[in-house]
Amino acid sequence: MTHLQLGMVGLGRMGANLVRRLMRGGHSCVVFDRDPAPGAALADEGATNAGSLAALVKALTPPRAVWVMLPAGKATEQAIAELAGLLEPGDAIVDGGNSFWKDDVRRARELARRGLDYLDVGTSGGVWGLERGYCLMIGGDADVVARLDPIFATLAPGRGAIPATPGRSGRDPRVEMGYLHAGPCGSGHFVKMIHNGIEYGMMQAFAEGFDILRHAASPALPVEHRFHLELADVAEVWRRGSVVTSWLLDLTATALAEDGELASYSGHVEDSGEGRWTVQAAIEEAVPAEVLTAALYTRFRSRQDHTFAEKVLSAMRKGFGGHVEPTKAAAAVSPDPAHG
Amino acid sequence: MTHLQLGMVGLGRMGANLVRRLMRGGHSCVVFDRDPAPGAALADEGATNAGSLAALVKALTPPRAVWVMLPAGKATEQAIAELAGLLEPGDAIVDGGNSFWKDDVRRARELARRGLDYLDVGTSGGVWGLERGYCLMIGGDADVVARLDPIFATLAPGRGAIPATPGRSGRDPRVEMGYLHAGPCGSGHFVKMIHNGIEYGMMQAFAEGFDILRHAASPALPVEHRFHLELADVAEVWRRGSVVTSWLLDLTATALAEDGELASYSGHVEDSGEGRWTVQAAIEEAVPAEVLTAALYTRFRSRQDHTFAEKVLSAMRKGFGGHVEPTKAAAAVSPDPAHG
Amino acid sequence: MTHLQLGMVGLGRMGANLVRRLMRGGHSCVVFDRDPAPGAALADEGATNAGSLAALVKALTPPRAVWVMLPAGKATEQAIAELAGLLEPGDAIVDGGNSFWKDDVRRARELARRGLDYLDVGTSGGVWGLERGYCLMIGGDADVVARLDPIFATLAPGRGAIPATPGRSGRDPRVEMGYLHAGPCGSGHFVKMIHNGIEYGMMQAFAEGFDILRHAASPALPVEHRFHLELADVAEVWRRGSVVTSWLLDLTATALAEDGELASYSGHVEDSGEGRWTVQAAIEEAVPAEVLTAALYTRFRSRQDHTFAEKVLSAMRKGFGGHVEPTKAAAAVSPDPAHG
Amino acid sequence: MTHLQLGMVGLGRMGANLVRRLMRGGHSCVVFDRDPAPGAALADEGATNAGSLAALVKALTPPRAVWVMLPAGKATEQAIAELAGLLEPGDAIVDGGNSFWKDDVRRARELARRGLDYLDVGTSGGVWGLERGYCLMIGGDADVVARLDPIFATLAPGRGAIPATPGRSGRDPRVEMGYLHAGPCGSGHFVKMIHNGIEYGMMQAFAEGFDILRHAASPALPVEHRFHLELADVAEVWRRGSVVTSWLLDLTATALAEDGELASYSGHVEDSGEGRWTVQAAIEEAVPAEVLTAALYTRFRSRQDHTFAEKVLSAMRKGFGGHVEPTKAAAAVSPDPAHG
Repeated sequence: MTHLQLGMVGLGRMGANLVRRLMRGGHSCVVFDRDPAPGAALADEGATNAGSLAALVKALTPPRAVWVMLPAGKATEQAIAELAGLLEPGDAIVDGGNSFWKDDVRRARELARRGLDYLDVGTSGGVWGLERGYCLMIGGDADVVARLDPIFATLAPGRGAIPATPGRSGRDPRVEMGYLHAGPCGSGHFVKMIHNGIEYGMMQAFAEGFDILRHAASPALPVEHRFHLELADVAEVWRRGSVVTSWLLDLTATALAEDGELASYSGHVEDSGEGRWTVQAAIEEAVPAEVLTAALYTRFRSRQDHTFAEKVLSAMRKGFGGHVEPTKAAAAVSPDPAHG
Repeated sequence: MTHLQLGMVGLGRMGANLVRRLMRGGHSCVVFDRDPAPGAALADEGATNAGSLAALVKALTPPRAVWVMLPAGKATEQAIAELAGLLEPGDAIVDGGNSFWKDDVRRARELARRGLDYLDVGTSGGVWGLERGYCLMIGGDADVVARLDPIFATLAPGRGAIPATPGRSGRDPRVEMGYLHAGPCGSGHFVKMIHNGIEYGMMQAFAEGFDILRHAASPALPVEHRFHLELADVAEVWRRGSVVTSWLLDLTATALAEDGELASYSGHVEDSGEGRWTVQAAIEEAVPAEVLTAALYTRFRSRQDHTFAEKVLSAMRKGFGGHVEPTKAAAAVSPDPAHG
Repeated sequence: MTHLQLGMVGLGRMGANLVRRLMRGGHSCVVFDRDPAPGAALADEGATNAGSLAALVKALTPPRAVWVMLPAGKATEQAIAELAGLLEPGDAIVDGGNSFWKDDVRRARELARRGLDYLDVGTSGGVWGLERGYCLMIGGDADVVARLDPIFATLAPGRGAIPATPGRSGRDPRVEMGYLHAGPCGSGHFVKMIHNGIEYGMMQAFAEGFDILRHAASPALPVEHRFHLELADVAEVWRRGSVVTSWLLDLTATALAEDGELASYSGHVEDSGEGRWTVQAAIEEAVPAEVLTAALYTRFRSRQDHTFAEKVLSAMRKGFGGHVEPTKAAAAVSPDPAHG
Repeated sequence: MTHLQLGMVGLGRMGANLVRRLMRGGHSCVVFDRDPAPGAALADEGATNAGSLAALVKALTPPRAVWVMLPAGKATEQAIAELAGLLEPGDAIVDGGNSFWKDDVRRARELARRGLDYLDVGTSGGVWGLERGYCLMIGGDADVVARLDPIFATLAPGRGAIPATPGRSGRDPRVEMGYLHAGPCGSGHFVKMIHNGIEYGMMQAFAEGFDILRHAASPALPVEHRFHLELADVAEVWRRGSVVTSWLLDLTATALAEDGELASYSGHVEDSGEGRWTVQAAIEEAVPAEVLTAALYTRFRSRQDHTFAEKVLSAMRKGFGGHVEPTKAAAAVSPDPAHG
């Protein structure tokens, strides 16, 4: 495999680990981050640490390839704008972050006017990617994707021990190595966005299921219909031969084995842009997406003590029925099933 | 109109007001409640206060009619069982509470074996019924409904100022008076149950709408896309010529005029059986009922600080992404739009 | 009341009826539509029919006010752009259509640079507005709203027979006449958008409820739990004293009185922009809007024979369980309850 | 491992394959089915084919164990009732089907009065179980579970190549072999029910995601925001290193590799009892289960051409807006993206 040179901008956990995996694969990396610490650490591991974007560009041999791994939105936008002013025709920018796909479409068009190539690469793998490899969803021109193929091949997990899907002979072999050229610019992040939307839905499916399992012990239920279930064991047994076998289940089993009450978690759940954009895409396409949307909304709800909506409900109930809702303290009926 | 004699068991707000409306209409009432206070008060207004169910039955002239207005479930079940032992063939029991309709079907069959008639009457009207009249949905045999017609006619709102629906000529005239003989036993509470299910959905529609209106002032939004709206005025203007004109909107307008923040409400929202049974009926019939169900679930959610489901989400997020969810205190990002 | 002169662009049902209601109120109208027919008709009723936008502008005395009543999007955008080139500083454009509120924000800023005023007016009332009046939600500068007050006062329903909401003394009296100055530009259409979002949710609540009522007759249910309900009567009785009393219920009662099977309706349900934008606003504000979103999605679903999603489900079921879904013909199990 | 003797009642695909896996494991099986064909086939493979339930019972040595593998409901109920009359105290009945868990609770109590043991065993594995093993969720008394342990150990997948979950030392080792003693009678089917509920949610998450991906090619979208995605490749790449890695994704990848249009599937999706009972359990416990419920409802919807609910919507829209919904033919706007 050809070894390439890559510039990496943004050395957070994801960016730094991408560099490490590339260097392990024999590629050479020039790195930059506003914070000098991660670059220094990577320099110890063999990377060239640039002091600025300009220095990074200078340290790369044309045709250059610079991978931007920054938070979506302003940070990415600014870095790409600055790079555009420093790079030369024939150079390429890769946005490996979680950008909104319509921003990719726009940026690709703008950069093309300057003779710069642009790829958007949805990158899945989280904290596990360094060892397991990253699942890559790539948007952009085929020749640019081909030029950077050694980079993608190194970052991706490869075929591994995963059984082949029957009936794929004749199809693009890169896909089975864990990287996909999805289509033109924007399509990489589009596919990654949907991936995350599905992820939300799957997570919520497990979350609701375990919530019902846990509340099977609720003292509000008749004794003969009450069960104290070992959630850690339930998750574990499903890992073997059941239909819901999945990596998310593996992670759940690990968390529940540690603490079946999950007491250390606040229950306050963040959402990133992809979940929201997935719903937006569904609406633009008039595709009903009940589950993906419901999964997003439970996260919104998790971050509030009480919604204003709920107060409106209470106000109406008082209005037509004279119902005075119990105060929060008085109404702490939410069952807390004692396990064991 | 013929004046009848009715026994009323259960003198909570609903039961007591039914008695008052009946007495205003010229009917005579024998009343009973475990708590002697409300019966004494009604005696002052002209009712006969019985000291026991047996005394109530004795005070009524056969064929008797006893209206049970108690909480659904045990209280109603026991009162009807006891009455069944006291009444004679030809007497009738009316369950005006919020019983589960399948209980009506069962009870009607059991009581029929003793020669007792049974009607289930869904009663809507809440605190306003005494003045406005009660919307009645009646299940049972036609001749029993006919026998008690003067009772229903008095309790119902009557035609009032409500414009006639075109195309109803030839249809059952009682309906326009505000009482409906829906069908056999169980159908009265079935129709009332669906009424409440719809009520949940409508309430939630308004609740969400006003929540979005309120959060239009969220500081998280760009300044040029931020509005401080007077929710009381929005509700008020919609009462006039808009499509969402409704009694629930009237009540919302009143509550918001009192306090646009609804600060006195905890946001803890109870649900009664009907909302749950509506979903159960939908599932038994394989009818998708997304909105009615979602409305029920927001109430479940409103009564918990955090669901276990949300903790499962956080645990997974930590597992695959190393995300540590902010603690509740640190993450109080929920916008609290300052009005004015 | 002062009588004003107004230009009306777009003479569809809404535009034409607005003109009629204004002329009945003593205002004079100059009208234009690409299609000459409606303008000619209105000319017979007293309007001045202009042959072009330029002619319309010429026929108005400064400071002019031109109300644009066109489909949201391109048609409105183009008409306003053309008008902007014809009008003079101090003139005002009113967008009374169903524009996206962010377009209003942008247009107001652009027009302000030319010295033109801009109001966005959400207009509810449909086919009934001519007689009942239109519920108006207005965004823009207070002085422009004040200048055109006679127009709004004439179009709005006025106080009518609607009982006053308690506790409104001291509040803006225009609201009780049926028109609201909601805030700066964009807020009029924002409030109207949420109105329509709520409308979707309420409609869906009724729709699901009546669907469950109808399927209570399903032959798949046990005989003793099966009811043949007269839906027209159910809707009618709820109009009197129930909690779900509303204009939408009135309309439902009328439709069901005409045909309890609603056989003339295909069940294919359109959605307009407002339902979608409401969900978008909810997501931007991180407000959970389960019911409003579910209501939108059922409309998306109603316009497809089968979703691709459903085929994916079938493919998975075949994969893990060997399930072969019945063909559509074989599986027509959807109960068609015979009434009577 | 001790080899046991087991009676199997019900020789459909599941029952027959359970027998095969048991015989491969060295156990001896006596089998019965109303249809003589599958029993004859199994006899060729070494089973004893009984001509009746009575013959089956006679062919077993006490203490007997009879596994019932029949459709939930009547078939299972009758078989167990008949077996109860044939078996002797100390014998055990195992219900391995998809019974409603409350039926198990009731049956266990009834059978205990006759001195019969009862286990409910949720069995996951479908057409793959014979080779991969079955994931078993068992409810009942610990000593009965222990007595039949060799049966469960043989049916379950065993540890296989699945990486161990960290932190499980000291926990029940059977779980990692793929079978779980969940708790008292009913809990086995309860856990299996939730498994299927989660399965519905996960399936729907994937289904919606792929629907959005497919409609990214919709001609209704702006050209620059339109993608023709190879769904088979998207599914395949996600199998490697992504967060949504799962067996359901493997199956989807296989189906899409075969035909990216899934043209052979009608989109008519059945649901079995577990999905419905999961929602029922959620409601009994007051646990919000938005995603699991939405997943159920899309299946209900998939089996209808148009819901009555949708006709109600159309009727209202005509009522307030004069909207006449397009006929189905005229409105076939559902985009059918041409791939390639």
